[in-house]
Amino acid sequence: MEEKEISQAVVSRLPRYLRYLGELRDEGIERVSSQELSDIMQVTASQIRQDLNTFGGFGQQGYGYNVGYLYDEIGKILGLNREYRLIIVGAGNLGQALVNYSNFERRGFLFQGIFDCDPKVCGKEIHGITVRPMDEMDAFIREHNIDIAVLTIPKASAVEVAERLADCGIKGIWNFAHVDLRLPGHIQVENVHLSDSLMKLSYNLSSVEEA
Amino acid sequence: MEEKEISQAVVSRLPRYLRYLGELRDEGIERVSSQELSDIMQVTASQIRQDLNTFGGFGQQGYGYNVGYLYDEIGKILGLNREYRLIIVGAGNLGQALVNYSNFERRGFLFQGIFDCDPKVCGKEIHGITVRPMDEMDAFIREHNIDIAVLTIPKASAVEVAERLADCGIKGIWNFAHVDLRLPGHIQVENVHLSDSLMKLSYNLSSVEEA
Repeated sequence: MEEKEISQAVVSRLPRYLRYLGELRDEGIERVSSQELSDIMQVTASQIRQDLNTFGGFGQQGYGYNVGYLYDEIGKILGLNREYRLIIVGAGNLGQALVNYSNFERRGFLFQGIFDCDPKVCGKEIHGITVRPMDEMDAFIREHNIDIAVLTIPKASAVEVAERLADCGIKGIWNFAHVDLRLPGHIQVENVHLSDSLMKLSYNLSSVEEA
Repeated sequence: MEEKEISQAVVSRLPRYLRYLGELRDEGIERVSSQELSDIMQVTASQIRQDLNTFGGFGQQGYGYNVGYLYDEIGKILGLNREYRLIIVGAGNLGQALVNYSNFERRGFLFQGIFDCDPKVCGKEIHGITVRPMDEMDAFIREHNIDIAVLTIPKASAVEVAERLADCGIKGIWNFAHVDLRLPGHIQVENVHLSDSLMKLSYNLSSVEEA
C-alpha cells in the first residue's frame, strides 16, 4: 500500500473499526456493508467509506467489505502485525493494572520489565515480572531492545525520566504522567491525561445542567 | 456568558490551557500574551485566540490575558466550580489507582463509594473507603446523590452495570471498560479506551519505521 500522510483523527478512529470488525469476525460474519457497519458503530456510512478510502479503499461496490480481510488490513495499518517490547516505569496501581491487562499481550505488546524508585517495591513480582530499581533501567532497555516505555510515575520525575529514556534509544513513550514531554521528534509520544478526560465529563455534565 | 454549542474539540483542549495557566499562576505570573502562551504550549497563537474567543474572548488588545482570571473562567467553563460525588465500580488495580490519585479530589471530584462483585475484596478499605458488594450499589447512589460512576470493570459486565446505573439516575459515567455504552442521551459518557491509545502509538511507531 502506498504511504501517505494520514491524519491523526482518522488514525484514532481505526482501533474502534478494528474492535467492531473483530466482534463481527468472532460471530462468523464474513462481509458487511458500510451501511451495516454504520448502524452498529453509530457513525455515518459516508464517514466509514471516507476513512477507509484513506487507505486505498477495501470495499467492493455491491459486495461491501470482507470482514476478515478488513480486520487484518486495519491491524497491519495500526502496526499490530509485529511485536513490541515494553517496560513499565512506575510500579504503582496504574502500572500494575496495565501489566495485568492481558489484552495488550494478545495484541503483541509484551511487557519485559518493571522499574520503580522505591526500594520497598523492588524485588516484588507483578504478573511474573520482578520489579527492578531505576538504576538498572538504561542497561535493560539497551540489552532487551525495548521499543516502548510506559510512564506511570508522578509528573515531578516524568520529564527527567523521559530524557533518560530518549538517551537510551527508546522509540515510543506511552505517557500517563500529567505533563507534556518535549523530546526529539523521532520519539513517538502518546499521552493519556486522565484528568483531562474527567474534566471533559464535568464540562458535559455542567453544560447539560445549565441548558 | 451566553450559552452556545461548543465543539468537543475545543472542550478537549481546555484542560490543557487550565494546566498551563495554573503553572503560570503558581509561578506568580499575572498576565500572558497569546504569543507567550503559544510558545510554552506549542500551539499557534491564532489557535489560542480562536479557542478562547469561542467563550466570548478573555483577552485585551495590548494587554493579553489576565492569568488568574482566565484560569478561573476556564475552570468554570469546565464545570470545576462545584463538587461531584463519585463511585468506583470495580476495585481492581485501575480503580485503586484512580481513588488514590489525590489530584481529582483537589479538583472537586469526591469519591464516596467503591463497589466490587468479588466477596473477597468487599470489606477491604481503599483510600479510607470500604469496598461494598454490588447489590448495595443502587441504593447507595440514590441515598448519596452520586453524580458520576467510574466503570473499571471488564467489558463483559460493563453494559449491564451501565444500564443499572442509568436506572439509578446517574448523571455521568467515566467508562474504562472497552465497550461503547448505549445509554439515554441525558447521561454523559466519557470513554477512556486504553488499548485504542496504545494502538495509536503502535501506528505512529510503525509508520515512522516504514518511512
